[in-house]
Amino acid sequence: MTYCVGMLLDEGMVFLADSRTNAGVDQINTFRKMNVFEKPGERVLVLMTSGNLAITQSVLSILNEAIEAGDEQSSLMNVANLFEAARIVGGALREVHRRDAEALKHFGIEFGAALVLGGQIGDEKPRLFSIYAAGNFIEATPETPYFQIGESKYGKPIIDRVLRASTPLAEAAKCALISMDSTIRSNLSVGPPLDLVIVRNNERCIGSQQTLDYESEYLHMIHVKWGEALRQAFRDLPNPLV
Amino acid sequence: MTYCVGMLLDEGMVFLADSRTNAGVDQINTFRKMNVFEKPGERVLVLMTSGNLAITQSVLSILNEAIEAGDEQSSLMNVANLFEAARIVGGALREVHRRDAEALKHFGIEFGAALVLGGQIGDEKPRLFSIYAAGNFIEATPETPYFQIGESKYGKPIIDRVLRASTPLAEAAKCALISMDSTIRSNLSVGPPLDLVIVRNNERCIGSQQTLDYESEYLHMIHVKWGEALRQAFRDLPNPLV
Repeated sequence: MTYCVGMLLDEGMVFLADSRTNAGVDQINTFRKMNVFEKPGERVLVLMTSGNLAITQSVLSILNEAIEAGDEQSSLMNVANLFEAARIVGGALREVHRRDAEALKHFGIEFGAALVLGGQIGDEKPRLFSIYAAGNFIEATPETPYFQIGESKYGKPIIDRVLRASTPLAEAAKCALISMDSTIRSNLSVGPPLDLVIVRNNERCIGSQQTLDYESEYLHMIHVKWGEALRQAFRDLPNPLV
Repeated sequence: MTYCVGMLLDEGMVFLADSRTNAGVDQINTFRKMNVFEKPGERVLVLMTSGNLAITQSVLSILNEAIEAGDEQSSLMNVANLFEAARIVGGALREVHRRDAEALKHFGIEFGAALVLGGQIGDEKPRLFSIYAAGNFIEATPETPYFQIGESKYGKPIIDRVLRASTPLAEAAKCALISMDSTIRSNLSVGPPLDLVIVRNNERCIGSQQTLDYESEYLHMIHVKWGEALRQAFRDLPNPLV
């Protein structure tokens, strides 16, 4: 399983991904789900992946091949804007679908993948897209400034309560990490190390990129303190009459 | 959709169910998912249902018919213990499956239902079961003192953090209501009125039963104060360096 969240804020963008993949609980591995495409000052794209790892790795191979070939039409390093970039990623998904979906079906495996793509290209404003397995996609707006993929439900309530487009970047990163902590607590197949990437508006490069693992003091603090804070908030509310 | 949670605690049991059902967002209705079978002082059983309403209503019809017939083997009002009661409910599910599953399949509808059954019969200790669509079931233990059915993920983190078997009943009811509030916030198809039932150990009757709707002061307080408390707890945690 996977949990990734991407946020589009007034100050920039936050991307957070876990790195656990599993095929049954006895086959757990670490694969990065955070992919960065960057020409500093000119463009930065961040692509997070969830779903069948064979599918998402194939998508990335196709995207990387196009970049290496320097293709004008299909290279993420050449496209003129984020919308075209989302179309290219959706197109890569469709190519993998054409190639693999039928064979997967014979084994009763659904063609499942979901991606989040965000970044900034040239003079365009930063944009964030959620791309479905069918290759179609939607774009974040100020009213819904975030997208989740993978195991999204455990970590959604805290985001819905605190995140606004106006939330500062560091605070949004805290929100993403709390959301991730709730998810890790409730689903064994989501786990560290976590990849956290920040992109500031109009820098068109990675503002900061860090990997938080079990030894991370901040992650440990979130884990302990958030649980304590929730329990305290719970105690402070009056009981119902029963 | 539905959200129900049942809790088995040292002092007794808490049952909470929403009452919204939907077949598409333009067809939303109120149906009670909380069903009580009671012979005060001798036995009390609480059955909560989720899933396809046609299936769960059929199950209840079968159970009620057996009660009216005074059947020794299959009436919830006659069985000797909770385990047998769970078998009877599972058996009713299997009967509906035999009758309807094939026809549902022709319309691409999966046979989906999940039930929670709890209560106390005679000298037996209180017990809580989670019953699957296949008619099989599992029983709650002190380590896992609760079961959820329906839209369970949004409301699970708070239960995991605060609920223990030793939690007092009123506090557990508060926990269930906060869990429900998080679910209602995140899933439009879960909604009030809410049915809250408390059963105290060895009373073998409903200890309290109340319906909380949008006008309920307590529910409103939970909704407002819990959100505020979460936002305050969130503000109190330091931001990460990004």
